[in-house]
Amino acid sequence: MTVEKKNAFYAQSGGVTAVINATACGLIETARRHGDRLGKVFAGRNGIIGALTEDLIDTSLESDAAIAALRHTPAGAFGSCRYKLKDVARQHAEYERLLEVFRAHDIGYFFYNGGGDSQDTTHKVAEFAQAAGYPLTCIGIPKTVDNDLAMTDSCPGFGSVAKYVAVSIREAGYDVASMAKTSTKVFVLEVMGRHAGWIAAAGGLAARGPGDAPQLILFPEIPLDEAAFLDRVRATVDAQGWCAVVVSEGLHNAAGGFVAEAGTRDAFGHAQLGGVAPVIAGLVKDKLGYKVHWAVADYLQRAARHIASRTDVEQAYALGRAAVEMALAGESGVMVTIVRLADAPYRWEIGRAPLAAVANLERKLPRDFITPDGYGITESCRRYLAPLIVGEDPPPYVDGLPDYVRLRNVGVPRRLAASFAVKG
Amino acid sequence: MTVEKKNAFYAQSGGVTAVINATACGLIETARRHGDRLGKVFAGRNGIIGALTEDLIDTSLESDAAIAALRHTPAGAFGSCRYKLKDVARQHAEYERLLEVFRAHDIGYFFYNGGGDSQDTTHKVAEFAQAAGYPLTCIGIPKTVDNDLAMTDSCPGFGSVAKYVAVSIREAGYDVASMAKTSTKVFVLEVMGRHAGWIAAAGGLAARGPGDAPQLILFPEIPLDEAAFLDRVRATVDAQGWCAVVVSEGLHNAAGGFVAEAGTRDAFGHAQLGGVAPVIAGLVKDKLGYKVHWAVADYLQRAARHIASRTDVEQAYALGRAAVEMALAGESGVMVTIVRLADAPYRWEIGRAPLAAVANLERKLPRDFITPDGYGITESCRRYLAPLIVGEDPPPYVDGLPDYVRLRNVGVPRRLAASFAVKG
Repeated sequence: MTVEKKNAFYAQSGGVTAVINATACGLIETARRHGDRLGKVFAGRNGIIGALTEDLIDTSLESDAAIAALRHTPAGAFGSCRYKLKDVARQHAEYERLLEVFRAHDIGYFFYNGGGDSQDTTHKVAEFAQAAGYPLTCIGIPKTVDNDLAMTDSCPGFGSVAKYVAVSIREAGYDVASMAKTSTKVFVLEVMGRHAGWIAAAGGLAARGPGDAPQLILFPEIPLDEAAFLDRVRATVDAQGWCAVVVSEGLHNAAGGFVAEAGTRDAFGHAQLGGVAPVIAGLVKDKLGYKVHWAVADYLQRAARHIASRTDVEQAYALGRAAVEMALAGESGVMVTIVRLADAPYRWEIGRAPLAAVANLERKLPRDFITPDGYGITESCRRYLAPLIVGEDPPPYVDGLPDYVRLRNVGVPRRLAASFAVKG
Repeated sequence: MTVEKKNAFYAQSGGVTAVINATACGLIETARRHGDRLGKVFAGRNGIIGALTEDLIDTSLESDAAIAALRHTPAGAFGSCRYKLKDVARQHAEYERLLEVFRAHDIGYFFYNGGGDSQDTTHKVAEFAQAAGYPLTCIGIPKTVDNDLAMTDSCPGFGSVAKYVAVSIREAGYDVASMAKTSTKVFVLEVMGRHAGWIAAAGGLAARGPGDAPQLILFPEIPLDEAAFLDRVRATVDAQGWCAVVVSEGLHNAAGGFVAEAGTRDAFGHAQLGGVAPVIAGLVKDKLGYKVHWAVADYLQRAARHIASRTDVEQAYALGRAAVEMALAGESGVMVTIVRLADAPYRWEIGRAPLAAVANLERKLPRDFITPDGYGITESCRRYLAPLIVGEDPPPYVDGLPDYVRLRNVGVPRRLAASFAVKG
């Protein structure tokens, strides 16, 4: 009796992370181990756009060594995209097209690796395929540095950003402490997290004792009170000579607008591209007169595979592996999740959540994770965050630089006559 | 016969680095091994200011483990300062005071760890002591991320910044390449180096093959030609879909001013603190319409001990050790240096240069290290830079964070009645 072997489609979606390729590694390596039951893994070039345009990458043409190297390579090896499938009613043609491409390439598995929007898409694709009578096993795999996905204890990508931010503010704190006598007294580090303060909170992990950086955190959840903030900066400098601040890019002012979008223009009248750190730094300098330095980590924080959290890498890999295993076990319409069993010592296992449940929820930073004064993290926050940054998993280095892989990314020959225009 | 054991004074000066404490480690550990001939090492609290104000730290009260941990701890463990001793004629009182403090604490060795200004100070102190008939062995030890010191092949601190910048732009390049199809097409990373492009050039090490980041480098030595730069950005995006740019904070415009000081103001009219990356990003967005992201590494780059170059750490340590050994061998009035014996395989040894020669020279980035078009580095530049970032030397980690030491820094009891006011 021959077992029917369907191919699998895998795509990376949304902003990339230091460990999304570790998930791809876990998924493809596991698929290869189950070659008796699963055909090839085709990756979407530039995410779901690759499926819509029939631009598929044949991962079977990559060596085992290249696939293994994905585990230590940041960003999206097949290309990612910011592209959201809307409701079936409004974008019926796109859903039809997906099934047409899947049918043409004998694809029976749909693995979608992304954030909340992507889980929503996975859910809609699953429902559409079912309604159309097309047999498609659909598994969502979480990914987001923002840690805002519901139903999973944490999101792959977040732990590594958290570690980067905590390490960076600790190091900068040592620097400023050294120089404060005659030079810079205040340092401001801007971090990601436009809608929730998970990443800003992670900066707080660096402060393990009194006087450690960061002494102040500015969360997107707490509108900036300029006078109160400046009082705290002054008090900190008075007490210990210097002050390190972590500020979220999503910080709001009292009027509810983003502080970073305060309408900055350069001397030529060009709009200045965002950046809340320079605004906060300018405020401190203007009002308190201290010498201030600031940094904006931007993509460095989410691409920093060199300082990735081993916990994060292991979870990212395990979720990719579990997605294939669940699919082969006949599960569908679920997102694989991280389930926390204990804080300390930290124990976790893989779980699953119905896509329908994931798609409509957003995980906010609980108010009781922020100290009552609004400038720090609580013990319960620390208990939650601490295990996520534990462990190092350095990439191999060649001549002083991380040896990241670049795949061949050979396209699968097209089988459809019609092309498909993706709406931008 | 009893050997007269003089104490030593050691101070850190100017901007700190990821490895200046490795130099302190090498110096203090070597001094401890020669306890039969050398007394205690007293460190200046906040650099030379500690000597002037008789605020000395007794390093003999630190455990061997704490001193060993300096090797993997960034920034200045005893505090540094930006304070320059002027000519003897103009600040005679300060030189007198130094000798008074040294005499009171039986100090016969002066080790000064800093950049060009500090070597100048060491030279002046040596001459003053000699003229005053005070026996003082004076050794300068190089330190600067800027790599602009003469007479040494490279400066401790630079190799680690170079590695940080090259690793960071490589990682960000992977990120942007993943996302370029539908999102960010241009990324701009601002790095240090106000007067010379050594650090910007180091970013170029990340580009080992065609299409690697960074595709463009903006050096302080080459005034920005907006139109030509924008043409290059557009051509790069046309050819490969994305473009990563490293820009030096010291970039000038055609009129000779700093691009970062283009008079930026926020909506409230506050002066915006520098930052050339947002200016360049705004230019690209305004003129070419691409989605752009930018990062400013600031202190993160010079404090990033977690990704320090092992070559740099070893040289920093070796220079501290050599300073003590030369002093005990009777040398004085010299700066210890790195002498390059071969590029590949890289070989180096410790040398020395007369302080008088170091003090009046600045090491510029040679024009032939920059490609004729002004946007990249040449093979000779690569040959010089490549060995400096080789090797990793990760610090120990505890619960996911580098375990940097904080010294006790116990003060030496004062022996002088008079206090001394340092001019700001």
